[in-house]
Formats: sequence, C-alpha cells, structure tokens
Amino acid sequence: MVKRTSQILRNLRKLMKNLAFVPETLHAYIVPGFDSHHNEYLSPRDKRRDYITGFTGSSGYAVITENQACLWTDGRYFLQAVQEMDENWTLMKEGTAESVSYTEWIGKNLPAGARIGADPWLVTHSSWENLENDVNKYGQELVAVDKNLVDAIWEDRPGVDVYPIQPLEIYYTGRTWKSKVREVIQKIKAEKAACYIVTTLDDIAWLLNLRGSDIPYNPLFFSFVVVCPDGRLHLFVDSDKVTVAVRQHLHLEPGSFVEIDIRESGAEGIALDVKVELHAYEELKDFIHSMVGTTDQGQFWFSPFCSQSIVSVIPKSRRLCKTSPITLMKNVKNPVELQGILESHIRDGAALCEFFSWLEQTVDSSEVDELTAVEKSREFRSSYENFVGLSFSTIASSGPNGAFVHYKPKEETCRKLSREEMFLLDSGAHYKDGTTDVTRTVHLGVPTDFQRECYTRVLKGHIAIRNTVCPVKTKGNQLDCLARIHLWNVGLDYNHGTGHGVGHYLNVHEDPIGIHRRPYPEDPGLDVGMVISNEPGYYQEGGFGIRIENLVHVVAASTNYNCGKFVTFEDLTFVPHQRKLIDPGLLTSDEVSYIDSYHTLCREKVGALLRSLGKTEALKWLIRETEPLG
Amino acid sequence: MVKRTSQILRNLRKLMKNLAFVPETLHAYIVPGFDSHHNEYLSPRDKRRDYITGFTGSSGYAVITENQACLWTDGRYFLQAVQEMDENWTLMKEGTAESVSYTEWIGKNLPAGARIGADPWLVTHSSWENLENDVNKYGQELVAVDKNLVDAIWEDRPGVDVYPIQPLEIYYTGRTWKSKVREVIQKIKAEKAACYIVTTLDDIAWLLNLRGSDIPYNPLFFSFVVVCPDGRLHLFVDSDKVTVAVRQHLHLEPGSFVEIDIRESGAEGIALDVKVELHAYEELKDFIHSMVGTTDQGQFWFSPFCSQSIVSVIPKSRRLCKTSPITLMKNVKNPVELQGILESHIRDGAALCEFFSWLEQTVDSSEVDELTAVEKSREFRSSYENFVGLSFSTIASSGPNGAFVHYKPKEETCRKLSREEMFLLDSGAHYKDGTTDVTRTVHLGVPTDFQRECYTRVLKGHIAIRNTVCPVKTKGNQLDCLARIHLWNVGLDYNHGTGHGVGHYLNVHEDPIGIHRRPYPEDPGLDVGMVISNEPGYYQEGGFGIRIENLVHVVAASTNYNCGKFVTFEDLTFVPHQRKLIDPGLLTSDEVSYIDSYHTLCREKVGALLRSLGKTEALKWLIRETEPLG
Repeated sequence: MVKRTSQILRNLRKLMKNLAFVPETLHAYIVPGFDSHHNEYLSPRDKRRDYITGFTGSSGYAVITENQACLWTDGRYFLQAVQEMDENWTLMKEGTAESVSYTEWIGKNLPAGARIGADPWLVTHSSWENLENDVNKYGQELVAVDKNLVDAIWEDRPGVDVYPIQPLEIYYTGRTWKSKVREVIQKIKAEKAACYIVTTLDDIAWLLNLRGSDIPYNPLFFSFVVVCPDGRLHLFVDSDKVTVAVRQHLHLEPGSFVEIDIRESGAEGIALDVKVELHAYEELKDFIHSMVGTTDQGQFWFSPFCSQSIVSVIPKSRRLCKTSPITLMKNVKNPVELQGILESHIRDGAALCEFFSWLEQTVDSSEVDELTAVEKSREFRSSYENFVGLSFSTIASSGPNGAFVHYKPKEETCRKLSREEMFLLDSGAHYKDGTTDVTRTVHLGVPTDFQRECYTRVLKGHIAIRNTVCPVKTKGNQLDCLARIHLWNVGLDYNHGTGHGVGHYLNVHEDPIGIHRRPYPEDPGLDVGMVISNEPGYYQEGGFGIRIENLVHVVAASTNYNCGKFVTFEDLTFVPHQRKLIDPGLLTSDEVSYIDSYHTLCREKVGALLRSLGKTEALKWLIRETEPLG
Repeated sequence: MVKRTSQILRNLRKLMKNLAFVPETLHAYIVPGFDSHHNEYLSPRDKRRDYITGFTGSSGYAVITENQACLWTDGRYFLQAVQEMDENWTLMKEGTAESVSYTEWIGKNLPAGARIGADPWLVTHSSWENLENDVNKYGQELVAVDKNLVDAIWEDRPGVDVYPIQPLEIYYTGRTWKSKVREVIQKIKAEKAACYIVTTLDDIAWLLNLRGSDIPYNPLFFSFVVVCPDGRLHLFVDSDKVTVAVRQHLHLEPGSFVEIDIRESGAEGIALDVKVELHAYEELKDFIHSMVGTTDQGQFWFSPFCSQSIVSVIPKSRRLCKTSPITLMKNVKNPVELQGILESHIRDGAALCEFFSWLEQTVDSSEVDELTAVEKSREFRSSYENFVGLSFSTIASSGPNGAFVHYKPKEETCRKLSREEMFLLDSGAHYKDGTTDVTRTVHLGVPTDFQRECYTRVLKGHIAIRNTVCPVKTKGNQLDCLARIHLWNVGLDYNHGTGHGVGHYLNVHEDPIGIHRRPYPEDPGLDVGMVISNEPGYYQEGGFGIRIENLVHVVAASTNYNCGKFVTFEDLTFVPHQRKLIDPGLLTSDEVSYIDSYHTLCREKVGALLRSLGKTEALKWLIRETEPLG
C-alpha cells in the first residue's frame, strides 16, 4: 500500500529552514532506521523512517533535500519499497553495480559547503565518525540536529507504553547481578577508565538480571546504565517501570533480601559493595556532562554502538571507544544458563513434534495455510512451562514462498500447505530459561530427486559445522565454507550467513559472534559456552526453500594430540530431520552415524517429555521419524 | 652480532633538535622499515632501521626519543633482535598479552603537545592517516620531516647502483604495454580522475613490460609513473637505466618498431595513442605539485600504499585514494603469461627432480648440509632455459630447523642432511616466462608413524584446497580452513597463511589475493587466471617441519547445476610428493585418485623434458616416485 508523503515532506522541509529547530538552514536531512540504542527491532514510536517514507523494511536510510527525497535499501526490499513509497521518493538500490552510497550521492548532488543534518541520538558514534569523514571529503558539513525533525511533524506518533520490568531469578541466571557488575568494574579498572556507559539494552538486561517488554520480540526495557569503579551503578529508566519487585531485586528497598552468589564465596565474595542509584531515562546526557566536569581522572568508556549524542558531551581526550566489556561475558553462557537453554529446547522440541504430527494428520482433511501454521506452532509452544513469547516473527513458507529467505506470511501471499510442496518453518520462542530458534523443512508428499539432493547437501553442510573441531578463538567467519562446500561442488549456494549468536532469554540475534561469509571485526572467536545457530540452506527461485537450523553450543574437544586448546559443537535443538528428504547414498558413514545418534538423542530427551505429558500422537510421530537410517 | 649504536643515536638526537633539519624540535622520531615504494625487500641503502638499530629482521619499527630508543617487532624476531641490538635499545614485543603499539607507547610516555617526527616518504598515505589519528588522540602532533635524519648521519651509506632495465618481449607478456596503459586510462576516465599515480614497482614493471634488478629477489626498478587520460604516460626514472633497447621498447626512438597487439584489432585498436615522457626519478613530487596548479578538473588517484610525501602536495579535495587499477589486471594472468608460467614450472620441476635424485644418491657418501642444498638447488635450476635468478631466499631445513617457518640456513645453524631427519626445501626462481615457488618435504630414511600421519594430514589439506569448487569472487580467506580441518581434527594446526598471490616473472608475493586466516580487505576474490600458492604445513618444535606447496591457477569449474559461475584450481607445480611419507589408510579414494593422477601429470610433463635432455638418473627417480598409490 502506497503512503502519501507530500504533506509530510513539505512540513519536514519547512523545519529544515526553521532556526527554532536547526542551528542553520540544512541542505539535507538524514533519517536512519535506528533508535537511540541501535536496537534490531524498533518500538512503533521509533519508526521515523517508516513514517516519512512509507517503507517498512528492516533496513534503509532516507535522505531529504530541498528538491529530492531518496531511500537507500538492499536487494531484499527493492520490490517492497516500490510498492510502499509514493512518487515523492526515489529508490536507491544498494549492492548493485551502479549503486552509490548515500554520502557519495549527497557529496555529488549538493555543493561544497552544504550542511547535512542528522539526529545524533540515532547514529552510533562509529557511524557518525565515518559519516563526518565522508561528508567532509566533499567539503560539506555534518550538523548534529538535537531536536528530531520527524518527531516534530509526526502528529499521531505513538505514545510511550509503560511495561513493568521483571526480575529474572538466580535460579535462571546462575549469577547475581552484583557479581556481574563487579566483573565489569574489574575491567573498567584495568582500563583505568572513569566509568563504562552501557547503552545496549541486552547488555543492561543481562547485567542486571532484568527483563522487559518495550521492544517487539526482544525482552528488553529502555534504559541506560553507567557503571563506576567505586561500586556505584547509575540506572536511567522510567521510574514507572520499576516495580517493588525490581526495587527489591536491586536492593533499593530497606531490608531487601540479598542474594548470595555461591561462586563468590572466596576472595571475590568480600569484594566491593555495589549500589544502584536510579535516575530518569532522559537524564543520562546531563549526568555524563556533569560527571565530565567533576572528575578529572580517567576516560569515559563506551562501545562503538553508543549514540553520538551521548559521546558529544565527552571531550575527545577523555573518550575510550572500545567493545563493551559486557558483550563477551554475555556471549559465554554459564552452566546454569546452559542447562536452562538445553531444557527450554527440549520443551520447544516437544512443541514442534506436536506441531509436525498435527500437520501431517490435518493437511489432507482441512484448510491449513501458512498463517494457520504460524498460529498453531505458537499455540503448541505456549502450553509449555516457562513460555514467555516468540523470539522473532515466525517464517512459515510453502513451496515457492520458501525461496524468500526472510519471508513472512501475509494474507496476500499466504499459501495453503499441501502434499505437493515443501514446507519450511523457521520459528522460536523465549522461555524464562532460554531462547530458541529452529528451522525444519519437510515434504508432506513425495519429494523430487533434486529436492532430496539439495536437502541432503544442506544437511551435509549442517553436519560439517556441527562436527568441526577447531582451535579455540577461531572466528566463525573462518568456518563458514564448511557449510557450503557440498553445495558448491554441484554449483549451488545460499545467500545468507550460516549462524548467529543467541542470547539466554534475550535477543535471538546476539552479536558479534556467529558464522558469516563476511568477517565481523569484533568477533572474539569461538569459546566454550557460546551459543550460536547452525543454519545452512538452499533456495530455488520459484520452487522451494530449504533451511536446516539447530542451535549449538561450543564445548571443549578432546583430540589425539594437543597443539593448543580445541573446541567443537554440541546440539541444543532436538527435532528430527525428515528422513524421506535424506538421500543416504550421498552421506558418508560418519554422517549417517551422526544422524542416527542425533535422532536417538531426540527420542531420549524430547520423547521422554512427550511420554510424561501423555502426548501419544506426537510421541508416535517422533519415534517413526527417528528410525535409524543405517 | 651486536651493533654499537651509542654514537649513531647521539648524532640522530642532535638532528632532532637541529632546525636546519626539522621545522621544530622533535620529541620522538619514528624510523619504519620501509622504502618510498613499500617494497617487501629493501635495497641496502634503504635499510635505515637496520642501520640505526642493528636489527636486520624483515619487520619492525624504531622510535627514538630524547632518553629512549625502542624497537617493535613480532614473535618471529624476538630472539634475533636481542642478539643484534645493544643496550641502547629496548625490544618491544608485538602480539603478546602485555604489548602496546608504538603510538600508544609514545602517547603514554611523552606529554601532550609532543612533536613526533617521521619521513613521509617512508610511510604510506593510509598508514600516515592512522598514525596521525593515533597521535592526535593523545594531544600530540605528527610532523612530516622531509630530510631523512638517518640518511643525514649515515656516513657509509651504500650508493645507488645503476642496473639497466630490460624490456620483456610480447612473446612472454602476451600483451603490449600500450594496450595495458589504454585499459588503465579507461579506468581513470571511469573515475573522472585527472591521472593515476603509480608508485608500486611491480605495477610499473608489469604495466610497461619492463624488468629491473634494483631490489633483491624482485625483478624491479626504482621509478614512478603518472598515467594521464589524454594518453601521456610520465615515467620518472634514473635515465642511466634507460638503455637504447628500453627507449625502442617505449617508442622513444625515432622509427621504433611498434608492436601490434592482435587483441586490440577491433575498436580498441584504433584507440588513443599512448606516449611516454621521461623525467628524472626525483622530479615526481614537483611534477604532481605543478600539475595540481595547472589542471582544475578531476581528482589525483593514488593507491593506499602511495607515500604520504607524494600525497601531501595534493589538496584534500582532489585526493582519490583507492586500490590501484593495475593490481587486478596484474593478478589475472593472460593466456600467454599462463602458458609461460606452466612451462617455467615444468623446467623448475625437472631441476628439482635432479636435485632430489642427486640428494638421495649423495647423502650417504659425502657431506651434504643445508647450505650445500641451497647452492645445489640453485645450480640445477640455473642450467634451464630462461632462468634469471632466485625468487626468494631458499629455505632448506633439516630436522628441528624445519620447525622454524621462515628459517634461512646460516653457518651457525646449518645442519647436515641425513637419513635420520626430515628435510624441507622451499625454493623458487624467476624465469623470463614465469616465477616459481615450491616446497617439498622428504625423509631420506624411515619416517615415524607420527611424521607420516602429520604429512598425510597436511597433504589432505593441500588436496582439499586444490579440489575446492567455489563461487567466482570467493575470497581466499573463506577457504583457509579447508587446508586445516584434517589437522584440527587431531588437535594440530600451523601458524601461517595457506597461500599468496604470485606474479608472472615478478614478485613471488603478489598482493592482495591469497588464502589467509585473516581477511584481506582489498582481496578482490578468486577469478579465472589468478595464480596463488597452496601451502599448508605442520611444525613440531624441536622435531621437524612439514610444508607442501604447489602453485595453482584458478580455472572455471564445470558443475552439475549452475547457480552462478563457479571456479576451481589446477596445479602449475609438478614435483612428486614423497610416497613413503603418505599413509594411504588416511586418504579417501578421491584423494588417492588425485595423487595418482597428479603423479601421472608429473611423469608426462616433467618426465618428457628430463627424457629429452637425457637426464636419466632424475628420470628414473621421477618414475619411481610417481608409482600409483592405489
């Protein structure tokens, strides 16, 4: 549906010249698709780029000049952008041979001396620096516009919802928030820094053992944290979200119960006391500004993803821009987190066995389409213990829809599920003890030889990753080709990464670890306790899509020789791979053994749960689907 | 041997305060180990860092302050640096947990406001920008010191040798220099640039079909080139090196024979005439400076490896810093170059068969040591057609010496070759039709089971790379793990890259292509016609070293399906892999077939040459060593 934007653009262009809003007339205004925390998913009131362009894709920049309005996005969204934007907007295609970046376009289309405005809250510090460099190359100037111009013209902008924050008990987290904060303080001290400013919301949620509901699919709450080496932790958050339970959890109530972390009983246990001080969410910048004035020792540490607006109040000589100390702590799961993740996967697997067993029985007799599949898979999951909600928007795609990697079923595109087509389900949920993300591809009728060959080659890549033994700290990028070589050998490939980090009842995409074609400069490399997805695929345009995804965790490998420390993966996901899609003739004996032993684990772990819950049909389905191949 | 540097440092520190040499007193002076062209190997008069420190390793930076003198280098050279430097120098170890970079050290050890000097000829533009950023972070200033202070105090500095430049005939190059220049001009025009400034010596040698002898092991000559879109090519070179043959080749003589490039017979053939203008080597900077003043259109294009000194005369708004347009042209070999490379490898393989056959017969009866092996392998090579010289310093290592990856035999460390130890020979040569680089590891007695297992696993990695099928433009970094997984599986690894680009009778290390653990941001990805090495290894400290290296070239792959264009590799090197070191029980049937067919090719190609030359002993050795495994 096309959005009419003429009036919106007229209003915006007026503000670009209004000195009550901008320090000087702007020649261009950049509207990025980000919020102040660089979140992957945006709350409705942060969808500024969607509001002015009409375009609702997950990736894209808008640039408005006096006479032009352009949107940059990538190949996934070309069609959608054309469908959603009116004639005011020009689509600028990224990643094509002729494509120019938006800074290059601005540089070449506006004169030297032009002033390019942007809201520094919506641009990370590292992006701002690059942007400024690019703009300066053309003799132009990047202007920080503190009042967001889109907000100023957005009449029906959604309000702020107040969702209460929830403490997550030590039974699930395995570690007190104070112990985590103390470890962060050690890292701050090692850097001789004045503080660490936490702006990434899953860092805050993980650090404080709190969860929220401010963002779709991510259990986060809007906030900032400043950790000081003296033990003070400043939490900037809307006080309406801070319930009595949260106050007790953070030891803000007199006589609050103090959790003891048994792992801290030694020297660390008698460490520095950590005290939380609450501030309003909006006060962070003033707080940092005044802290700069009152402390004269140490640098202010922030991550490259920190908003430029915050960084701008710190003098250059006192900036320490460096990967968050919390990122790696969060990536490496502790034994309690891992146990919870494993248990949540067994429940999740049981729900999926129910779903696939139900689907097989229902597909002939009644109308099952992609949207029904989305709803039904949610329904099965939601009956299990600790279920909180979905961890991302379910991808359920039948036949040719499966060839769109990021397909989401809608009324207009929704296909009926049938015995004639392949069906791909990529779905996951948050449980209080873990986050899941699993993809299975099935054929409810008779697959073609080509479909079986493709499926089996994808499976070979999936097994190759699972069984990799590699030196600790190997970056995921270095392993990516192992998932592809069996497809490459016959001239096939897939156009997405092979794996991403996954949080513990947190974001389903947890950077910077994973298995990607492109290097991730911040990737710390694989280490014991990390959780990532293993999801190669193959997509036949107009035909079908195949993806096979398990979550795996990194474990120590035992090897014949020991030239350093080696690691390998173990599966966390336990859902059978459809046997009829596997061509055993293409598998090595090691691969057959792996599948058979994986299926035995599915029976043992998920089968036991289904049996104990009396889910006989699903159990029967599971037993049949896990018969040995060999 | 320790070098005494007290007087040298006193002299240098005087100059750091002498306003005839520096614009203001310097607090520190940086001496990098590079020359004005960022060459890998330095001519003796460019070894400034060696002169002031005594340290002769290939990698390292020296920093001199009023009271301190420090050298930064990496783990390969810690021992050597300690042995070569006197008490004036502090070794700063790179790549250790406590290591600080030299800019960090300067930042923390000198006050804000300190002036840090360096010769901008010896620092590339991209390094200079990073250096300036780093220095500015600490409130310090980077000062370009135009007169090199080391040169000013270096009394016995070697003079300039005048080696004549040699034209390389079209029979070898397959393409006229004018045709190459015209292609560069097209690229300059596509960028709307005013010119391209060529500072990389192998770019110049390749572009003009000329070779020189100014640098050890690299057939290059000191020069700069400026290519202008109007067809003028300005060559800055010592006129004493420009012989009549070179003048004729460059069509500078009246009535010079004009080469016709048959591939240009079409539209391209009636293109722009290209004219060379000669200038003195030292005139480049003035030339650029005056060109900036006389042209007002277009940017000055240079590569990130261009010296800062040159870039400094170009106003920022007119700089275009971007990968050399010549790099990719040079990386992708034309059919004539490839044919020459293949033929030179057959001769090189014959020489190595002679060497190994000789070694086997001689090892018991007379004293053969590593230095003899170096000399003898050179001797065999030098008797073959088109031999010019070695392409790098031969690595010949016996037993435990093999565990040092970059080992070079010297009198002090030289071991006798024997039937008790493994022997590794990594060597190569320039022929007028191609450059070779090959490593073979042999055991002249009875290898242990562990040695055979390690050798076979290295070989499996070598075969995996050779037989990879992957999408065109796959970056070498993405394939690196294929060479390692068979070692990783048992807890072993090797601590170097797997492959590097190789020139056509040019540098044996030709960036930016190759197969590396770390990503090379400039790597254009694999394409048909590229030549790289394939050289996994394994090193057992105190025991032995194994490396197996062939050069391979990228060819189009034929695949069952065609989801895009796929490529694979073919071997260029034809020297047998020692059969007694191979454990066939560890090989798959595909791997055995590969070895047998590779050995058949060795017999066919190298065997035929040995037969025609009547080299009966070497031929007998080759036939025996290429018996089928299967």
